[in-house]
Amino acid sequence: MEPVNIGLLGLGTVGGGTVTVLTRNAAEIARRAGRGIRIAHAAARQYDPERISGLDSIGRIGDDAFAVVDDPDVAIVVELIGGYSPARELVLRAIANGKHVVTANKALIALHGNEIFAAAQEQGVVVAFEAAVAGGIPIIKALREGLAANHIEWIAGIINGTGNFILTEMRDKGRDFADVLAEAQALGYAEADPTFDVEGIDAAHKLTILGSLAFGIPLQFERTFTEGISRIEAQDVAYAAELGYRIKHLGIARRTPDGIELRVHPTLIPHRRLIANVDGVMNAVLVKGDAVGPTLYYGAGAGALPTASAVVADIVDVVRALTTDPHNRVPHLAFQPTELADTPVLPMADVETAYYLRLTALDRPGVMARIAGILGEEGISIEAIKQKEPAAGETHVPLIMLTHRVREARMDRALTRIGELDAVAGHIMRIRMETLAG
Amino acid sequence: MEPVNIGLLGLGTVGGGTVTVLTRNAAEIARRAGRGIRIAHAAARQYDPERISGLDSIGRIGDDAFAVVDDPDVAIVVELIGGYSPARELVLRAIANGKHVVTANKALIALHGNEIFAAAQEQGVVVAFEAAVAGGIPIIKALREGLAANHIEWIAGIINGTGNFILTEMRDKGRDFADVLAEAQALGYAEADPTFDVEGIDAAHKLTILGSLAFGIPLQFERTFTEGISRIEAQDVAYAAELGYRIKHLGIARRTPDGIELRVHPTLIPHRRLIANVDGVMNAVLVKGDAVGPTLYYGAGAGALPTASAVVADIVDVVRALTTDPHNRVPHLAFQPTELADTPVLPMADVETAYYLRLTALDRPGVMARIAGILGEEGISIEAIKQKEPAAGETHVPLIMLTHRVREARMDRALTRIGELDAVAGHIMRIRMETLAG
Repeated sequence: MEPVNIGLLGLGTVGGGTVTVLTRNAAEIARRAGRGIRIAHAAARQYDPERISGLDSIGRIGDDAFAVVDDPDVAIVVELIGGYSPARELVLRAIANGKHVVTANKALIALHGNEIFAAAQEQGVVVAFEAAVAGGIPIIKALREGLAANHIEWIAGIINGTGNFILTEMRDKGRDFADVLAEAQALGYAEADPTFDVEGIDAAHKLTILGSLAFGIPLQFERTFTEGISRIEAQDVAYAAELGYRIKHLGIARRTPDGIELRVHPTLIPHRRLIANVDGVMNAVLVKGDAVGPTLYYGAGAGALPTASAVVADIVDVVRALTTDPHNRVPHLAFQPTELADTPVLPMADVETAYYLRLTALDRPGVMARIAGILGEEGISIEAIKQKEPAAGETHVPLIMLTHRVREARMDRALTRIGELDAVAGHIMRIRMETLAG
Repeated sequence: MEPVNIGLLGLGTVGGGTVTVLTRNAAEIARRAGRGIRIAHAAARQYDPERISGLDSIGRIGDDAFAVVDDPDVAIVVELIGGYSPARELVLRAIANGKHVVTANKALIALHGNEIFAAAQEQGVVVAFEAAVAGGIPIIKALREGLAANHIEWIAGIINGTGNFILTEMRDKGRDFADVLAEAQALGYAEADPTFDVEGIDAAHKLTILGSLAFGIPLQFERTFTEGISRIEAQDVAYAAELGYRIKHLGIARRTPDGIELRVHPTLIPHRRLIANVDGVMNAVLVKGDAVGPTLYYGAGAGALPTASAVVADIVDVVRALTTDPHNRVPHLAFQPTELADTPVLPMADVETAYYLRLTALDRPGVMARIAGILGEEGISIEAIKQKEPAAGETHVPLIMLTHRVREARMDRALTRIGELDAVAGHIMRIRMETLAG
């Protein structure tokens, strides 16, 4: 069979990696796909020809992305520019032109996926986005196809490698957040502006996508709760370890009788859980299905070649789908578009979790009883309390508490009241806890 | 659309689980698949109606499996009888009748897969077998589709839950093999005849399948090296732990310049590796691709509902494939049938690994030098030696050695020579070691 013609948008990290994988593994990919895959036309504003191996295999390289999208020779457009615009316009135009699309753009899918999938559905084309979540890990395929028999109960994922690298270094070396962040930037693991990574926005994009695939709801990035790791202190990492926990930045999607939780935040998890041992820049997603039980998917969540692995797997999938009946394809959001549910996403105030609390209290009889009393009045049970020894000359001591599960609104009220006590000084640190069992 | 009619062979553990999942999650599965899935006709010699929830959803239950396979109303035959015969005859007849097949039967695929896939190819039907390896973990989908862009370098899997349960208990409690095996049998984790599990035959069936999918070679069960865990002693588990290792029963498939390694054996692996922390009856498969790097897939490898999760996912896949062009489907063994390679499978003598050795030697000067001398003459470098203190009144001491990588034939020669030394008593224990890095 004739090779399939690809149009490639972007020759940056992932675009370059895609060119490399498609050329280096061309023979093996064709042995699987049954036909060759050829980049007929690529567009990039700028790129470094020295850094991309396989560039000479590309039919034509220009700087006009719209020319690629409009090229009648191109069957599949691969969007690796990133960002919202012009990525959205390019993808919509490719669809309007009847072309299939492969994209690694999590921000685009999380914010404009509903519009894009509706357009694709109408045109009978596929928009594939495996590379948008957790890099090379085939988690979207696992959720949409591999676990199709399951009622998914919850998902918990380490889906931002930068954040996981920082938390791992803080734990292994006892270092502070700012210190490790600076190193991550020097190593190229973190951007000059690290906001998307460390404040959880990137993870929230990915979690939004995972939540829709798991529960059959439209994409709702604006309802995904997002809290970053920049407030986490070295002492919290150390106290968590003493108590048998590790702090991980998790994206959690959970089905409850009242609605769906979509939340990204630092989380204490028991150190014996497999996912607690996923370190450095690696990603992992834990999925609990009612039939299969817990399953975990682990691998590199970013980087040129791992992300290209997912992009090229999507290309092979789309090549196979070229001759299929559009009604029998895997639906974009795992469920048929007519079968999406309007299950509400819960506001954070209604979410129930356990908590780690660290506060600084006057080292005097009765103070702990007062604090425990307020928690009790709000219906919050304490699982463990640890009072540290006061440092020489200090009148205040750190007080660490673990609570049982309680609705966030109650914890907010309790912490406001505790914060007003004269015996409590400064900021109260609160980190949510999950057992990730059952 | 009309529901799809399934014919079900077997109502044992997995058959019953499949009925339960298909009925309990019927609405959610139809929301994904776009149409209902109905068991039109089932056959079982005997079954316990009390233990299977959803049994009344089945159109007709008989005791003649061939009647199901010949039933013109059945589009997809689901074979959950297990064993070689009559499973082979039933599957071949279903294919001859133009029906698609879903099976959980690893022994059947490992031994007769080449014949079965050739017949299916000729008839233009699909034989799906996700449930044959690692239960509910979608590892076959990951290898065939999710990692399609990669040149796979190696696979290492914990693919027998019984064996992993036994090794985990031996480590956690310091217990002996026979003792834990008896408990596993009482708990229902091990069969009355545990040979298939503890001697590695079940794992070898699964590894044979994984090796073919990874490297595009025909199924060659007869060339898969198999060594069980029944020789492992509590002291080996303890010594391994002291040295920073855990003993896992791994299936390993590796591509080398000389050929492909397919081997199942107990293996020392560094305790910090994620897969070293996969405990109890759980399974995990670590796959190293050239683009994606290491990825790991973890979950329940057996049990009614986890295995049914994979069976039903396969049914949904086949339902989607009903209208596809047979030439554009995912090939049975990941590579197009005309593109399978005749890369040789290496005999064990040509496989290179590192080793853990435990021998019992006379506690006398010069003995260790003699042993080290023989290893050196055979070109084997020693990475670490540990000599234990002699027990009171004992003249012999346990001597533990870790070696660097060496071809197995050389190690065989060295151990024969060492075994002939007067100063060495009894059996020499040899366990292969892998770093699972790179």
